Amino acid sequence: MAKIALGTGREAFQADCIRALIVEFICTFLFVFAGVGAAMGSDKLGGDSLVSLFFIAMAHALVVAVMISAGFRISGGHLNPAVTIGLCVGGHITLFRSFLYWIDQCLASVAACALLYYLTGGLTTPVHTLASGVDYLQGVIMEIVLTFSLLFTVYTTIVDPKRGFIGGLGPLLTGLVVGANIMAGGAFSGASMNPARSFGPALVSGDWTDHWVYWVGPLIGGALAGFVCENFFVERSHAPLPTEEDTF
Amino acid sequence: MAKIALGTGREAFQADCIRALIVEFICTFLFVFAGVGAAMGSDKLGGDSLVSLFFIAMAHALVVAVMISAGFRISGGHLNPAVTIGLCVGGHITLFRSFLYWIDQCLASVAACALLYYLTGGLTTPVHTLASGVDYLQGVIMEIVLTFSLLFTVYTTIVDPKRGFIGGLGPLLTGLVVGANIMAGGAFSGASMNPARSFGPALVSGDWTDHWVYWVGPLIGGALAGFVCENFFVERSHAPLPTEEDTF
Amino acid sequence: MAKIALGTGREAFQADCIRALIVEFICTFLFVFAGVGAAMGSDKLGGDSLVSLFFIAMAHALVVAVMISAGFRISGGHLNPAVTIGLCVGGHITLFRSFLYWIDQCLASVAACALLYYLTGGLTTPVHTLASGVDYLQGVIMEIVLTFSLLFTVYTTIVDPKRGFIGGLGPLLTGLVVGANIMAGGAFSGASMNPARSFGPALVSGDWTDHWVYWVGPLIGGALAGFVCENFFVERSHAPLPTEEDTF
Amino acid sequence: MAKIALGTGREAFQADCIRALIVEFICTFLFVFAGVGAAMGSDKLGGDSLVSLFFIAMAHALVVAVMISAGFRISGGHLNPAVTIGLCVGGHITLFRSFLYWIDQCLASVAACALLYYLTGGLTTPVHTLASGVDYLQGVIMEIVLTFSLLFTVYTTIVDPKRGFIGGLGPLLTGLVVGANIMAGGAFSGASMNPARSFGPALVSGDWTDHWVYWVGPLIGGALAGFVCENFFVERSHAPLPTEEDTF
Repeated sequence: MAKIALGTGREAFQADCIRALIVEFICTFLFVFAGVGAAMGSDKLGGDSLVSLFFIAMAHALVVAVMISAGFRISGGHLNPAVTIGLCVGGHITLFRSFLYWIDQCLASVAACALLYYLTGGLTTPVHTLASGVDYLQGVIMEIVLTFSLLFTVYTTIVDPKRGFIGGLGPLLTGLVVGANIMAGGAFSGASMNPARSFGPALVSGDWTDHWVYWVGPLIGGALAGFVCENFFVERSHAPLPTEEDTF
Repeated sequence: MAKIALGTGREAFQADCIRALIVEFICTFLFVFAGVGAAMGSDKLGGDSLVSLFFIAMAHALVVAVMISAGFRISGGHLNPAVTIGLCVGGHITLFRSFLYWIDQCLASVAACALLYYLTGGLTTPVHTLASGVDYLQGVIMEIVLTFSLLFTVYTTIVDPKRGFIGGLGPLLTGLVVGANIMAGGAFSGASMNPARSFGPALVSGDWTDHWVYWVGPLIGGALAGFVCENFFVERSHAPLPTEEDTF
Repeated sequence: MAKIALGTGREAFQADCIRALIVEFICTFLFVFAGVGAAMGSDKLGGDSLVSLFFIAMAHALVVAVMISAGFRISGGHLNPAVTIGLCVGGHITLFRSFLYWIDQCLASVAACALLYYLTGGLTTPVHTLASGVDYLQGVIMEIVLTFSLLFTVYTTIVDPKRGFIGGLGPLLTGLVVGANIMAGGAFSGASMNPARSFGPALVSGDWTDHWVYWVGPLIGGALAGFVCENFFVERSHAPLPTEEDTF
Repeated sequence: MAKIALGTGREAFQADCIRALIVEFICTFLFVFAGVGAAMGSDKLGGDSLVSLFFIAMAHALVVAVMISAGFRISGGHLNPAVTIGLCVGGHITLFRSFLYWIDQCLASVAACALLYYLTGGLTTPVHTLASGVDYLQGVIMEIVLTFSLLFTVYTTIVDPKRGFIGGLGPLLTGLVVGANIMAGGAFSGASMNPARSFGPALVSGDWTDHWVYWVGPLIGGALAGFVCENFFVERSHAPLPTEEDTF
């Protein structure tokens, strides 16, 4: 059974950790900039709500695929505290470094949203909220299921050292499942699957409605998937950190 | 000529079979959750019927690509009794294990639909039905053709041991053909291509209209494609079961 | 400079040629079934003309990517007389076999359209025509440019033996360029790029308006691209026929 | 630290340089033809502005993925002066050849737009402009961020010799990030990210509104990303020119 690695504070001052944090910041920033930007563009242009959901889902699918691929070799390209916790539970990143990643991802999301707020002349950064008729428990469970799906994809198509012929398609497939899951859950729970992605718009707009749902749901879903995959389906690699080459 | 392998009841208690059934359950559950969830989200948001069909087709395309890739190494990632029968006819999975897969896939679909019913506050899980003006024979033939197309893709791009430079793109391509086929047949037969995908919504909503069409059509189409591909176009691999690495 | 290979009538009776013709028939049939089916579904559901064009473009993009990949190893997965002429000009398929492919592709397209006509209860199979305000010369030139683009992609990403790290993505990329080109030209020339794809609907619906444009334009564009690529940009492979493994 | 290579005028007469310029011209021409053609088709068919933005974003995503892949081995498939400057700053192409590429790319864009103007019977080639409410500084910064994102993707997924398991997916991912970025920025700055792409429509339509923004923003963003990636994240390859095989 995998053991969570604690790590030490000394890590934070190592060159590879700093480099990873910078790359993780850039990737998360560019991901949130495109994702929230698309949601703001959709709000600005108006139009049918189904078209709008599709537009936003596809923008997220494409940019997630790209930014995981881009950051992969240096920071792992998590983009998302739920991915980080899922990998931490599986022992692929230390607990200490996970906390640094969480802070880093949230800062990047806030920076991207603040810049979008300025660049669009003060348009609202849209926040994730539960649709009317969806209660807290329903919202949390939906976020758990969707985030489990996301981490299940990360583990089976990226982390698994025996993933075999899938090769380098894992990050692309992870983007695609994010797109499909937004199409499935967007009209109900908002389908965040990512606390950092929800945090930036909430802080910049000052709208914290339902915000805790997007921490509790994704983190439970991510941790659960990490535990299940690492212990039952995916053979342990001997590479504890995602920054080593060709292993994750 | 390929011979169907019967298998024995002892198989069901072997560790690799149980592990395969669990992974197949998870993959099918997550596939149906995203696919039916997208259809329910589309119903909720309303909007143009062509946009809605496209939305649903793309959600299916993306999640099928992902879940075949995710399950591939352990269960084969069939997601679909028609895929299982097609591979059984070609001798890639035993008849006994195929029945276990069928039950497993149907249970996963029911579980996903029941959860969606709860999470959406009791919205109807939309079922596949024939469009007005399409009779039973037309519907069955369309499902045969579309499912033949799906299995033809599975055989040529995933199973074929000489598929050569296509590499690991097979599951992605299989997702894409599902998307294209839903665009082609969705307005006529519903374009299920998958009895389990049709079974879950029918059971949860209690609406069995035209349901048999989505068993007869896809199973004939899948078996036919398996027979044709295995015997005429795709050279036999020596790997009878999809769980062995790098072979399917 | 590449020389066109004539081939002989004896070829038609060789087992590999017959097998290639059968696979080419199946792939072209399934391609036209999905492409024309999507156009018919779009007509049935009505809706915005821009949405409709996008719907049709994406259906073609996805199914072209799949069917080239599916047929690749056995028939080359041309699906299209313009692709066949482009490869013939480069010496990758004999002139005699090219004629067999042309007939085969047209028969497959007619069969798919006739079956769609039956399955949809007699809906019109929509034909390619020039938009109002686009004259013959403009239409022919647009088809030349778009088909040149298609064959340029086929040569650089599939045929080129030094295509290097692009690997097996060539058929997928070819599907994507078909999608982009339909978005670009669909509102003007119809963006067929494929005489067989145009022939089936024209025969089944009996509507031959502007039909010659979709033979002249694509065949010139395809032949031109084959000539340019083979002689100036793509180093000659020593594999004259697309049926040999790993070479095209 | 990487040094920009000046190059000499003698280069322009070398066979490989001429061949690269021809391929770069063809790729850029076909890219602009599909991208601007899709924008013109969208204008012609009318329809919802959000649908139109999505339509244009997807056309660009697909054709960029294809044309980078197509041109990659011979010219690098830059398609874009901002990509060229980004690679020049990293020392992957000489300064002299970069100027030749810039001229080449602009000529190709003008040729594609002029041909579209003729083929569509004189429809306006739509130019990039700032949306109302977006001032110059906001527009320039948005173009900087989006182009930084584009070049960051080029460096990490194509140029990086240790990009590892991402393999040949880099050009496809680059197309996807272009699509996502157009969805994010299209409603605000126009999301050109490419001076040549903006230059052709401006010259052919004679409309130079805000045109300088699409030179200043993308060139700064591209150069900045090249500097950052080359010096901090991506290990230097020893291949100064993108025309050598398997290295970029």
